Amino acid sequence: MSEAPGAGPLTYAGSGVNYEQIDPFKRLAQEAARATAGNIERLGVREFTPSRGESAFLVETPHAYLAHVEEGLGTKNRVADAMRRITGRSFYDHIARDTVATIVNDLITVGALPLSVAMHLAVGASEWFADEMRAADLVRGWKEACDLARCVWGGGETPTLKGILEPEAALLGGSALGIVQPKERLIAPRLAHGDTILLLASNGIHANGLTLAQSIAAKLPDGYLTPLPDGRPYGEALLDPSVIYVPVIDDLLSAGILPHYAAHITGHGWRKLMRAAEPFVYVMDRIPDPQPVFAFVQEHGPVTDAEAYGNLNMGAGFALYLDPADVPPAAAIAEGHGIAALAAGTVEKRGDEQRVIIRPKGLEFAGETLGVR
Amino acid sequence: MSEAPGAGPLTYAGSGVNYEQIDPFKRLAQEAARATAGNIERLGVREFTPSRGESAFLVETPHAYLAHVEEGLGTKNRVADAMRRITGRSFYDHIARDTVATIVNDLITVGALPLSVAMHLAVGASEWFADEMRAADLVRGWKEACDLARCVWGGGETPTLKGILEPEAALLGGSALGIVQPKERLIAPRLAHGDTILLLASNGIHANGLTLAQSIAAKLPDGYLTPLPDGRPYGEALLDPSVIYVPVIDDLLSAGILPHYAAHITGHGWRKLMRAAEPFVYVMDRIPDPQPVFAFVQEHGPVTDAEAYGNLNMGAGFALYLDPADVPPAAAIAEGHGIAALAAGTVEKRGDEQRVIIRPKGLEFAGETLGVR
Repeated sequence: MSEAPGAGPLTYAGSGVNYEQIDPFKRLAQEAARATAGNIERLGVREFTPSRGESAFLVETPHAYLAHVEEGLGTKNRVADAMRRITGRSFYDHIARDTVATIVNDLITVGALPLSVAMHLAVGASEWFADEMRAADLVRGWKEACDLARCVWGGGETPTLKGILEPEAALLGGSALGIVQPKERLIAPRLAHGDTILLLASNGIHANGLTLAQSIAAKLPDGYLTPLPDGRPYGEALLDPSVIYVPVIDDLLSAGILPHYAAHITGHGWRKLMRAAEPFVYVMDRIPDPQPVFAFVQEHGPVTDAEAYGNLNMGAGFALYLDPADVPPAAAIAEGHGIAALAAGTVEKRGDEQRVIIRPKGLEFAGETLGVR
Repeated sequence: MSEAPGAGPLTYAGSGVNYEQIDPFKRLAQEAARATAGNIERLGVREFTPSRGESAFLVETPHAYLAHVEEGLGTKNRVADAMRRITGRSFYDHIARDTVATIVNDLITVGALPLSVAMHLAVGASEWFADEMRAADLVRGWKEACDLARCVWGGGETPTLKGILEPEAALLGGSALGIVQPKERLIAPRLAHGDTILLLASNGIHANGLTLAQSIAAKLPDGYLTPLPDGRPYGEALLDPSVIYVPVIDDLLSAGILPHYAAHITGHGWRKLMRAAEPFVYVMDRIPDPQPVFAFVQEHGPVTDAEAYGNLNMGAGFALYLDPADVPPAAAIAEGHGIAALAAGTVEKRGDEQRVIIRPKGLEFAGETLGVR
């Protein structure tokens, strides 16, 4: 939380997430990880090296690519815990879906479909499980999310970690095993000048920006019960469950449409649009209408447009980079699943320039602002 | 920690881990998870249902079984954090190996070899990364552990979770993607009367019983610096790195030796010996000499033999259940990797009885004491 909340715009560093302190560690880890590549060649498989730094790690076998993702929910369940105390409703069915979504939406960026998703639920004390409604909602929500993601719930881990977690807290995360089969369905980066950027609608804030959102609630007199312009309580809107985009990718690939790239819009917000290693300029001419919760966060932070688009999904949870001819059928598939799709921008090759330009907002993000991917 | 530490033997419930509160949740989750089995059949693969409840989840493809494990280290790194303050040494190279070991040693129980291991490192504050020695030790240790486990370090997740983790704490865990190939290498339960139980030596307490171990340190005047009978400080002995058993299983399978079952001795200690679903009686006629740290924990807890063997590895980190003819070559393979192997017991069929009998200690654990597997 900011030292002086009223003194200026809230920033990510001020709300406790400081990428500058973490990124050197990530770089060190990535370098060490690359040095392990040879360890599996005796088994007749190999790592797919271009997947390093992408959202899912890939191992190439003779018959398929296998994909592996480890992800965490972040702090969103703290909002649910607060709303449980205020309203009596647990919202952990939504929290479960958020957690599964954050895992499987990373996995599908490479064209992998999830086979198995595992839950990691760490608690500060065994008493966490005494809230039977919350526990049952979590189980039901996780199961429903696996059904939406067309995958199997393949186990999990539920440690009690006294002294590591706060006594009443829970940490949610997990992992997925996925498969790209046949191998031609691999979404390997092959962006080209003139590609269309198709944005798939989010369902609100999803699982990013929640530390910021909580610091805003803390300084509002009515906290999470403060109504949005549409009358819904702020806390309830924050807890709208994330979209699971697996059916869109699954059906796209089955229809023979192979995106040139795909990005899950999470931390770093729309800066994630320039996630691909090769430099391009991403020119966004249209933007979706953000859900009311974003305007509320921006107003009460206050959070500038630059901070908002640089860190939040702002109504767009997933980006597909497509041959323009593939845009109408791709949009139709998304909309068939109830997910609005907006042909919002274009990929341009301008030498070594790497940036995202959001014309309707007069914003630009330079490549170096993305940091470690 | 026990309310009155001097009043009686320390128990697991007293040290903050209460399986009775967690097990109903686990049962609910397992039931919901089973209902997702059909979700992947459209892809020409299926879950290997007998793997539900085992240490690794399996998906059967036409060419291989794919294995998935999600695991956490528990609270062991709190001991390293305390020793960092006392001695200046971080021990996070050992902590990294413990974490990888807890993941891959589960994976190999089904005959799967790890392809990719991902790190999940959650911290309470970004400042955690300011300790550069600790961060570097963690990265180096994780890389070395992946080399020992003959697998690739395939990514990870490093969230900052203010309000969920204690401000100076870190939670370590992760996941693995593994493969059983050719499919004949699957270690599917096929225990038979007369099988030999070959125990592979541990290297100390590994990653189980550390909450108990910490509560003992808290009541010793010299804490982690209290010397063991062999002169080593208690905290240092607790942090001896876990054995990674992957090379043993890999080489066993390559030598054509297929265990009838395999168990990673973790939580529930030697009760894990009766992990298989089919009821058998496991008669242990010999036990390995536990490392000095176990005698110390038992003395200062105090911890009875029943609590110790029921919750700790007591010198045996992994169990192979073998045709007696396979025991000498299997032991030779383990010892070739510097891991002592002891033909310690025998599997007996006695109708529906399920129990572990440890004759040298006069102990018996009935099947129902294992709870949810």
